Amino acid sequence: MSERVFNFSAGPGCLPESVLKQAQRDLWDIDGSGVGILEHSHRGKVVDKVFDEAQADCRALAGIPENYKVMFLTGGASAQFYMLPMSFLKKDQTADYINTGVWSTKAIKDAKRYGGAHVAASSEDRNFCYIPKADAIRWSGSPRYAHFTSNNTIFGTQWRAEPRAPEGVPLICDASSDIFSKPIDVTKYALIYAGAQKNLGPAGATLVIAREDFIEQGSEDIPELLQYRTYAANDSRANTPPVFAVYMVGLVFKWILEQGGLDAMRAHNEAKAKPLYDYLDGSSFFNATADADSRSLMNVCFRAPSEELEKAFIAEATKAGFDGLKGHRSVGGMRASIYNAFPPEGVVRLVEFMEKFEKRHG
Amino acid sequence: MSERVFNFSAGPGCLPESVLKQAQRDLWDIDGSGVGILEHSHRGKVVDKVFDEAQADCRALAGIPENYKVMFLTGGASAQFYMLPMSFLKKDQTADYINTGVWSTKAIKDAKRYGGAHVAASSEDRNFCYIPKADAIRWSGSPRYAHFTSNNTIFGTQWRAEPRAPEGVPLICDASSDIFSKPIDVTKYALIYAGAQKNLGPAGATLVIAREDFIEQGSEDIPELLQYRTYAANDSRANTPPVFAVYMVGLVFKWILEQGGLDAMRAHNEAKAKPLYDYLDGSSFFNATADADSRSLMNVCFRAPSEELEKAFIAEATKAGFDGLKGHRSVGGMRASIYNAFPPEGVVRLVEFMEKFEKRHG
Repeated sequence: MSERVFNFSAGPGCLPESVLKQAQRDLWDIDGSGVGILEHSHRGKVVDKVFDEAQADCRALAGIPENYKVMFLTGGASAQFYMLPMSFLKKDQTADYINTGVWSTKAIKDAKRYGGAHVAASSEDRNFCYIPKADAIRWSGSPRYAHFTSNNTIFGTQWRAEPRAPEGVPLICDASSDIFSKPIDVTKYALIYAGAQKNLGPAGATLVIAREDFIEQGSEDIPELLQYRTYAANDSRANTPPVFAVYMVGLVFKWILEQGGLDAMRAHNEAKAKPLYDYLDGSSFFNATADADSRSLMNVCFRAPSEELEKAFIAEATKAGFDGLKGHRSVGGMRASIYNAFPPEGVVRLVEFMEKFEKRHG
Repeated sequence: MSERVFNFSAGPGCLPESVLKQAQRDLWDIDGSGVGILEHSHRGKVVDKVFDEAQADCRALAGIPENYKVMFLTGGASAQFYMLPMSFLKKDQTADYINTGVWSTKAIKDAKRYGGAHVAASSEDRNFCYIPKADAIRWSGSPRYAHFTSNNTIFGTQWRAEPRAPEGVPLICDASSDIFSKPIDVTKYALIYAGAQKNLGPAGATLVIAREDFIEQGSEDIPELLQYRTYAANDSRANTPPVFAVYMVGLVFKWILEQGGLDAMRAHNEAKAKPLYDYLDGSSFFNATADADSRSLMNVCFRAPSEELEKAFIAEATKAGFDGLKGHRSVGGMRASIYNAFPPEGVVRLVEFMEKFEKRHG
């Protein structure tokens, strides 16, 4: 097998190698069925097992109570931007959003098509380089729900703990880029959604965890496949689901369990990001773009003294086997995405490479 | 590698084995990039190439003119049931649908949420066992569009040629279960859609081929990701697309081109289905459920003299290495789905098995 590089892609991101090897085998024949995972009916026993285990492992990982549903949808997290207000926001209602970047901005835009959207807090004033403090959040009178984005892939910021919504207001989280990177208390939320392609698997599936009574409050005046209850009632298989993406997410759940679960993931991710942030803090050449108290353990954004040097850095890094380090155009510079499956060795090696680069160019 | 069985699944269906082997390799490392296909950024060069080639090969296969867009969406064909009327049907307008089964019934239901839906013809009177004749179609006064389902997976019926919509009325086709099984004159259509998981690849992507001027007529008052123009303008990548499913569809396009294209596919599929239909016509034990002039080359539905015998047949067939033969509950009995990638040998072997079963039980 050929050599793999260190893949710092912001998403789709790298996957555990043991999971890839399992998938290679199952593509040809899964469970001795004589049929590959891509070719099985979504109503057959093999896929039943895939879905059942993915749900059960998800529940085990996050300690999800019985009154929550675990569902797999399509369309990416972006489809949730409209599905959510379509179901839960009426013209005369207002939903509160905390705006911490490009994706929450899009979510707000879609919500406004269906009702009022109040921006309860925003970090746009400093190009989204921080997470608003609790005392800066101004909720509206009686919001239909409160929405935030737990980790901002583009700007490299992450909430330390979820914001506290007013009593009785359903809390909604777009957790696409840090889900299951640390423990999560699901009972604080009415609905959590996450595109799979960062911490959970490949692109093509969206995990939605939602409280049953909240699901039941959703509009019934919209197409069935845009109603969460349809997925809840049909085990995410009212129509043909993205079987392979769900299968891969299931394998990743098993991998996280093998690593020791979400507590272990937190320790692993904290230890993994530390050498990079420590180095950035000590460097007078590179600097981290996010405020120290808002830094993401998933996406580490940093800049060099000039765009020319950044270009040179990315080119040399790519040659040296560090892929996907180019930052998003909204921030510029570099971004090292180091999701759950990213190996700690890659961070150590990157820091060594940065030190050498700094010495040569600093 | 373990032995694979004959997979008659109605969808997800079997895929070409050469495609599976390519995918196994690319899961680990594609194009010598050191990164697997599941882990590449959807904005990087490797995925650019995947999407560019998939589009170009699709155009080459079906002779798609420049004024049509080739797009990849998610949510299955069922998502098209609402996306289409959301974009193109207003409250005071009527769209015409030909009802030939379960899926067109669902499409009609969704259309009614947005405007009028007139059933121009239906084969429901005989449990959808036939395709309505041209002179049985009663179009409404001035339909916004005319919709039909080219092949009905559940009932095993297939249009020989597309219905003729009134002059100037956009013709729309759900071609999920027979797309690219034979040549198609795209210029007759305003929009064609197909879930990938039968003839084109795994579940998770929906191919949409649409005329540019029709796309531009769509509503702009709906979320951007529900507008076709968003996919047309962003190369199907306004947000993270289902990369792997599109990659697989691209490999299947290349495989069809290698087989000789759509003319060769038609010849291949006609020759493949013939022994089974010939046998059914000569058998006094098994009988085909669809009218002879409406029979599908993709899904061959048939019954045995009793439900008991059908149960025995399916059990014995499964043991003998013929998987997925159980018919849909709406028809009962058996269904052999023999999409493009299904090997002709499997049909010959099935017929031999049926002959023996008939001798024992007939």
